[in-house]
Amino acid sequence: MMESVTSTKKPLPSDIEIAQNAELAPIPEVAAMVGLDEKHLVPYGRNVAKVDLAAIDEMSGRPDAKYVVVTAITPTPLGEGKTTTAVGLAQGLAKIGRKPVLALRQPSLGPVFGVKGGAAGGGYSQIVPMETLNLHLTGDFHAITAAHNLLAAMVANHLHFGNELGLDEIQWRRVMDMNDRSLRHIIEGCGAKTDGVTRQTGFDITAASEVMVIMALATSLTDLRERLGRIVVGFTKDKKPVTAEQIGAAGAMAVLLKDALMPNLMQTLEHTPAFIHTGPFGNIATGNSSIIADRVGIKAGDILLTEAGFAADMGAERFFNVKCRAAGLTPNAAVIVATVRALKSHSGRYQVKAGKSLPEEMLQENPGDVEAGIENLRKHIQIIRDFGVQPVVAINAFPTDFPSEHDVIKRAAEDMGARVAVSTHVADGGEGAIELAKTVVEACDDEVDFTPTYEFSDSLETKIEKIATKVYGADGVELSPAAKKSLAMYTEQGYGDLPVLIAKTQMSLSHDASLKGAPTGWTLPVREVRLAAGAGYVYAICGNMMTMPGLSKTPAAMRIDIDENGNTVGLF
Amino acid sequence: MMESVTSTKKPLPSDIEIAQNAELAPIPEVAAMVGLDEKHLVPYGRNVAKVDLAAIDEMSGRPDAKYVVVTAITPTPLGEGKTTTAVGLAQGLAKIGRKPVLALRQPSLGPVFGVKGGAAGGGYSQIVPMETLNLHLTGDFHAITAAHNLLAAMVANHLHFGNELGLDEIQWRRVMDMNDRSLRHIIEGCGAKTDGVTRQTGFDITAASEVMVIMALATSLTDLRERLGRIVVGFTKDKKPVTAEQIGAAGAMAVLLKDALMPNLMQTLEHTPAFIHTGPFGNIATGNSSIIADRVGIKAGDILLTEAGFAADMGAERFFNVKCRAAGLTPNAAVIVATVRALKSHSGRYQVKAGKSLPEEMLQENPGDVEAGIENLRKHIQIIRDFGVQPVVAINAFPTDFPSEHDVIKRAAEDMGARVAVSTHVADGGEGAIELAKTVVEACDDEVDFTPTYEFSDSLETKIEKIATKVYGADGVELSPAAKKSLAMYTEQGYGDLPVLIAKTQMSLSHDASLKGAPTGWTLPVREVRLAAGAGYVYAICGNMMTMPGLSKTPAAMRIDIDENGNTVGLF
Repeated sequence: MMESVTSTKKPLPSDIEIAQNAELAPIPEVAAMVGLDEKHLVPYGRNVAKVDLAAIDEMSGRPDAKYVVVTAITPTPLGEGKTTTAVGLAQGLAKIGRKPVLALRQPSLGPVFGVKGGAAGGGYSQIVPMETLNLHLTGDFHAITAAHNLLAAMVANHLHFGNELGLDEIQWRRVMDMNDRSLRHIIEGCGAKTDGVTRQTGFDITAASEVMVIMALATSLTDLRERLGRIVVGFTKDKKPVTAEQIGAAGAMAVLLKDALMPNLMQTLEHTPAFIHTGPFGNIATGNSSIIADRVGIKAGDILLTEAGFAADMGAERFFNVKCRAAGLTPNAAVIVATVRALKSHSGRYQVKAGKSLPEEMLQENPGDVEAGIENLRKHIQIIRDFGVQPVVAINAFPTDFPSEHDVIKRAAEDMGARVAVSTHVADGGEGAIELAKTVVEACDDEVDFTPTYEFSDSLETKIEKIATKVYGADGVELSPAAKKSLAMYTEQGYGDLPVLIAKTQMSLSHDASLKGAPTGWTLPVREVRLAAGAGYVYAICGNMMTMPGLSKTPAAMRIDIDENGNTVGLF
Repeated sequence: MMESVTSTKKPLPSDIEIAQNAELAPIPEVAAMVGLDEKHLVPYGRNVAKVDLAAIDEMSGRPDAKYVVVTAITPTPLGEGKTTTAVGLAQGLAKIGRKPVLALRQPSLGPVFGVKGGAAGGGYSQIVPMETLNLHLTGDFHAITAAHNLLAAMVANHLHFGNELGLDEIQWRRVMDMNDRSLRHIIEGCGAKTDGVTRQTGFDITAASEVMVIMALATSLTDLRERLGRIVVGFTKDKKPVTAEQIGAAGAMAVLLKDALMPNLMQTLEHTPAFIHTGPFGNIATGNSSIIADRVGIKAGDILLTEAGFAADMGAERFFNVKCRAAGLTPNAAVIVATVRALKSHSGRYQVKAGKSLPEEMLQENPGDVEAGIENLRKHIQIIRDFGVQPVVAINAFPTDFPSEHDVIKRAAEDMGARVAVSTHVADGGEGAIELAKTVVEACDDEVDFTPTYEFSDSLETKIEKIATKVYGADGVELSPAAKKSLAMYTEQGYGDLPVLIAKTQMSLSHDASLKGAPTGWTLPVREVRLAAGAGYVYAICGNMMTMPGLSKTPAAMRIDIDENGNTVGLF
């Protein structure tokens, strides 16, 4: 086994510089570290392997690893380093002799060429090779795009050949893994009669596809096949759902997705095994990585870290209420990533903007600002506790932080009896996350009394209300007439027992991005309710949800190129 | 090394039955058979490897293998088994102690779910695993789709942000690897002002993308990068071309395509190495597999078989005039695949339709019908000879053929002094292609006086005319006013030295599918001329070219599924 290298440099080199200089361990060695047999590895390129699903059955006799979800406080538009912390924590756990496994979402290709230019952790806590991670990886997103669009083509074909099933309202659009605003709203079938039926439709980004969530929630190939069949593509005039099964597409979709259902094994800079698998949107979808990856990971190693998108009110709520229940898994602990800058922004005294650096005055020592925003952290601690799970607050330290500011966070956590640790994993790799690692190991021995927010037998309205009031802290819910009508219809159609997702901004505990801290005295307005029957939930939309991003005037793609040696440049 | 298994069964099992029961050799062993070092293999799944391009440089000192193109007479809509013959011939060459390498196009995903259900040769002459071949393979087509659509998104984005370059007429559409007629003509940007500029556009199938041809014609990563930059996405009001380089997309496209440029190594049922790489359309594009695959293959083994789409007037013409010249390679021989059924159909006495079985009366012994259609074969022999290359006529034998019918074909070939052999590779595998293999080996020792149809310095009009008269046998060319205008414009813009492709039906030597045999006394009408500056050619369109297929009422997708064991069914 290779030595894990953390000869960290000061000042910190750029992410891509660190990533491109990383020495990788052969994937079979990475797998062997957590007892994954080489025979289950299907190589894809030189540094990635898929793990075949036979591994799950074969390892079923092994004890379950501790199951830890990594979530965060309400973030600024810059993100608070949840992935980075998950990676650093995994590296730290390895340093103290544990056998950690990571489960993360795959980045979407669209944003790579849009604003972001790449996502793979940061500093000395990254997944490598970052180029592979950020581009096609093993083609899973492409397979999902193809399966989604095959169904769309077959729906359009069904209309073209006479619409035997009587489709009246079609909700199935197309997808592309691209930021392309011009495709949000299109009119298709604009040619001759032989060129299809003219109608309005559009494209979402692949991460927003229901097929993406289905892949993330499927527990087996058989379950995947059944979920695909249950997808509702639209409704008849008398409001009967029409499914992918009726269109005849579900089988071919499953064939397209078969290989993509195997999770992808990569590694951190310190060779910790990391499963990168699926990447559903965090607003209209679950925002969690796949159940399949977690099921493999929980039988490999002794502690599994899985990341949930956005803050605890968003990704973690769905992790507990939807993912854990679909997976039949019980979490042992939750890590809440907190930063000084996010808590300062919750003071309401600053404006942080995506793609711009922080206001200069936010970088001054100011424990008072942190204190002014601390209610946000308190609320997220409470959210986790209400699920019967003990939280660990992970302070993701920035070089611009001051000890006095960290102290405010520590005191708040300790006041609530919550564990807390500072982590410097970005600058120091796993070495910087040792304290956090020890704290998380302790927390995993706490007793868990897993308590979801609602019962599946609750009415759809009740489920929405319980999430809004018990998790978000709203006084209540206001349903639009359209939302009420849809809820009645879905209940009537037999979908009343499904869980509910609430699509709202991630920038606030409320539906209003400008409400910082832990807002009280507000009501959640539900504009519209939609059905994702294949994924297995109903989702309530509060505000405008962007499901197809656009490019900026000078997108990251403009700086991405190959150099004279064929190496990729500009991907950071 | 595994024994090559050809324990053929009678009666012939179905293609998928043969393929799924095939025993595969480990890919490193397949590579080693033709001296390809394992260090150059990048595994993708259990039965495919990409070959890194460093292999080309490293093997540059080796002698070139014999270079043989496999083409055909004018086919029926059912196809005449060109791929099958290429596979069988490769297997036959191995049987007689040669070291053959195959180079074939990757099948398009659209038709797999449309009419065809899969394409991988047939009977005991197939590429395996057929499921891998027909679905995502290593994701190259998906990478091409992504690169193409990134450019489209950036063009749309350029318009959205004020159209600084002054694009007036945009010729760059989008692509999808799907049969979806409803996307042929769309109006994009139908939402609010923030949802892009409203304009008419559409989707082609990925195989029709200029990026696909660029990948097929690129000789290196650097050449790929330059070609991408030269793509003309549209024109300004004063008819100046606007390129992908100006849009700022070419670098990011190259990064998306880097891995896809490595050819994919698979194997035949008898473990012969087969490169499967790129798959440009046979009408508006070159219809040939990649130069990169040929450049690797020509340094591995001692005879390289490369397939050219459709008949000798189409794929082989482009092979000689465009591909060989771009690659700097000289062919040693050409195989013309002929069938009894195609020659009978050239008698003009029968109607053969796609997706339908042959008329019963075509299956009767009738050498007279073969004789009546034989002019088509004679013309194709002449076409090959005019390039200074010696043809071998390969009679692809069907169980329904009669010796008297084969005799007509043999006599015609021998009358012209051309080599000819019967091959029963579908029923018998390589064993059935031994006679053909020996004949091809002989032909490879013939002297070659490679003579393209035109000089690059000829005017664009002259090039079109030379192909039409010298290759197709037309009396002349009739250019529409629009075509004349475009030719003048492209010449003015500096594209006059590019080669020319003629997009016409593959069902006749002429532009009119109903003209069978070897039509004379006709003029080629050119409706429109277009520019593919990145791929490096101008193409003249004669008739309606379908660049986005549709699905039938009951597409193959409807029967494709997984069974209770997770195995794919219905893919044949």
